[in-house]
Amino acid sequence: MITGVAVLGSTGSIGCSTLQVLARQRDRFRVVALTAHSNAELLEHQAKVWKPVFVGLVNGGNGAKGTGKGKESLIEAATHPDVKIVVNGIVGAAGLEATLAALRAGKRVALANKETLVMAGDLVRQAAREGGGEVVPVDSEHSAVLQCITGRRPAEVSRLILTASGGPFRTWEASRAATATVAEALQHPTWKMGKKITVDSATLVNKALEVIEAHFLFDLPFEAVDVVVHPQSVVHAFVEFVDGSVLAQVGFPTMELPILYALTHPARVADSGTRRFDPIIAGALTFESLNPDVFRAYALGRAAGVTGGTAPAAFNAANEVAVARFLEGKITFGRIAEVIAAVLDRWDAVPAASLATVLAADAEARRLAEEAACS
Amino acid sequence: MITGVAVLGSTGSIGCSTLQVLARQRDRFRVVALTAHSNAELLEHQAKVWKPVFVGLVNGGNGAKGTGKGKESLIEAATHPDVKIVVNGIVGAAGLEATLAALRAGKRVALANKETLVMAGDLVRQAAREGGGEVVPVDSEHSAVLQCITGRRPAEVSRLILTASGGPFRTWEASRAATATVAEALQHPTWKMGKKITVDSATLVNKALEVIEAHFLFDLPFEAVDVVVHPQSVVHAFVEFVDGSVLAQVGFPTMELPILYALTHPARVADSGTRRFDPIIAGALTFESLNPDVFRAYALGRAAGVTGGTAPAAFNAANEVAVARFLEGKITFGRIAEVIAAVLDRWDAVPAASLATVLAADAEARRLAEEAACS
Repeated sequence: MITGVAVLGSTGSIGCSTLQVLARQRDRFRVVALTAHSNAELLEHQAKVWKPVFVGLVNGGNGAKGTGKGKESLIEAATHPDVKIVVNGIVGAAGLEATLAALRAGKRVALANKETLVMAGDLVRQAAREGGGEVVPVDSEHSAVLQCITGRRPAEVSRLILTASGGPFRTWEASRAATATVAEALQHPTWKMGKKITVDSATLVNKALEVIEAHFLFDLPFEAVDVVVHPQSVVHAFVEFVDGSVLAQVGFPTMELPILYALTHPARVADSGTRRFDPIIAGALTFESLNPDVFRAYALGRAAGVTGGTAPAAFNAANEVAVARFLEGKITFGRIAEVIAAVLDRWDAVPAASLATVLAADAEARRLAEEAACS
Repeated sequence: MITGVAVLGSTGSIGCSTLQVLARQRDRFRVVALTAHSNAELLEHQAKVWKPVFVGLVNGGNGAKGTGKGKESLIEAATHPDVKIVVNGIVGAAGLEATLAALRAGKRVALANKETLVMAGDLVRQAAREGGGEVVPVDSEHSAVLQCITGRRPAEVSRLILTASGGPFRTWEASRAATATVAEALQHPTWKMGKKITVDSATLVNKALEVIEAHFLFDLPFEAVDVVVHPQSVVHAFVEFVDGSVLAQVGFPTMELPILYALTHPARVADSGTRRFDPIIAGALTFESLNPDVFRAYALGRAAGVTGGTAPAAFNAANEVAVARFLEGKITFGRIAEVIAAVLDRWDAVPAASLATVLAADAEARRLAEEAACS
């Protein structure tokens, strides 16, 4: 029995890694649908290699037979009857709508887009319940947690400790980090990623998003989700159980392992495409507490998670605007946290009861953030 | 439903730790039987506290009502109809016979005595198959492996990496370690244990015994059981799966966690009696390869495991004699490996097909080892 897979965002980093994994697992999986935002050339090449039933190009598609265009093509791919697993590597609100549609159609969603759960965790869980779908994380920290708890009763888990590399400013004074350049913020010590997530790793906003993601994925209160700085990025997460024992998932950084596990969970299949872990080569593993003076945006995100409702969506939107302005050179690194704080200070959270509410909160928070970034 | 437990060797280190764990879990377990070798005073005290149905004193018992004496009392405790779990903390051949009897009677044996599996791994597995019993490890490394693989299919496991502290001579030159004193050998850096096992940790014979134990417990070939030196003893074992992912169990050294898990496996129960793990307090975790020049006895033990049959029993017996002579000051530290090598050089392994064969091999190897130690 070969499992049908849709890859949303197939020309992006997660999409390309997914196709590399699938190329080694052709006897287990086939690509039913591919979608991309605007990279028509690479999408066409991928379609030739994989011969999917459906190809969607959000920006620039012509809607010929077997192809789709616009945001509707994401929904079509995500709900295609031959698809069992949707790998969602799409950033932003478009990714959220496709996730909800897939879950309502009973699919497994291998979710690389943490903003989805941050903005609309309750809606995502509701869609999964109603449609019989399930969310399986692709994020390395959350995949690590899932791997440690697979086969366990949820009530046996007492605490998660997500690891954070600490980014390039881990050892910097707060005052120096406040004026860091874009080039400095883009020097991630262990993971090679896109610009936005690399800046989020420098502010540790990324880790706040992951704490909120973990809260929704594993149904744990925020006080049960800790973070520790681990500069080597070898231990991806610790899971503490009620008896006091702790498991961890370890390995050299690669997205291919979490992607593969999201496809095969709860089983594992033979695969030798990733670098074999060797504790001696890994070197000394060290752990430090977060410096709240340097990583103020992290604390703001965590607090937004605790507030709940539309607050996490506002936090996420404010951060996206602030990071964009920072990358454009319009605001300093230190101002990212200030912009977020300005938005959240004025935010009245309401329950994130519908997609419309979430999208309206996202838009309003962006407006407030633009205002704060200009002032 | 309260589970009945027999604690064999209740006055020893494992026995006392077991009773400490059970004192916190009185709503789940009750002590049905206690046995000790010769510490009548402590046994009497334990019996007053726990009010077991049966008390056995191997050396010195009088066989009054509800009590036993001699080695038979171990079998009686291990097969008592009210007992579901036998915690076996007895060293040597007497422990082996009780383990076999318990397994044939369909009990779970929480096994702290690694010599049992080293001497008679095939017999132990056969007894478990025939009687419907099961062996659950109490050794911290093997408990770590079990915790990582619980809920997984055995075929998903590709490799184990057991950790070794490296003992007090990890950083010594081979020539200097060869003439180490008894006091130096008894300085274990991370675990507080009995003298024999502490010397075994200095020679790394203990780790060879654990490799053989892992081979039998988890049904893995020797090439799938690696060892890495990890001076901090925080990571107890790594388990590599067929997809390349690696899980680990971590924690501050304590025997109480493995004992508790052996009682509750595959479930976990709430317990806060052990020190909570904190990666920041744990400090830097480092890993090194074994230095085969310093740890020759380890290589001999591993080779005996690969040879199989009665060779592991001969290795174990030769080591016991050599360590006893070292502790008496009769031979140097460096001579321990030489005595073992002398015995194994002359050893013709035959299948360990019966208890009689195993016990005869044990006796013969001891004789050869005494000879080698005097020469």
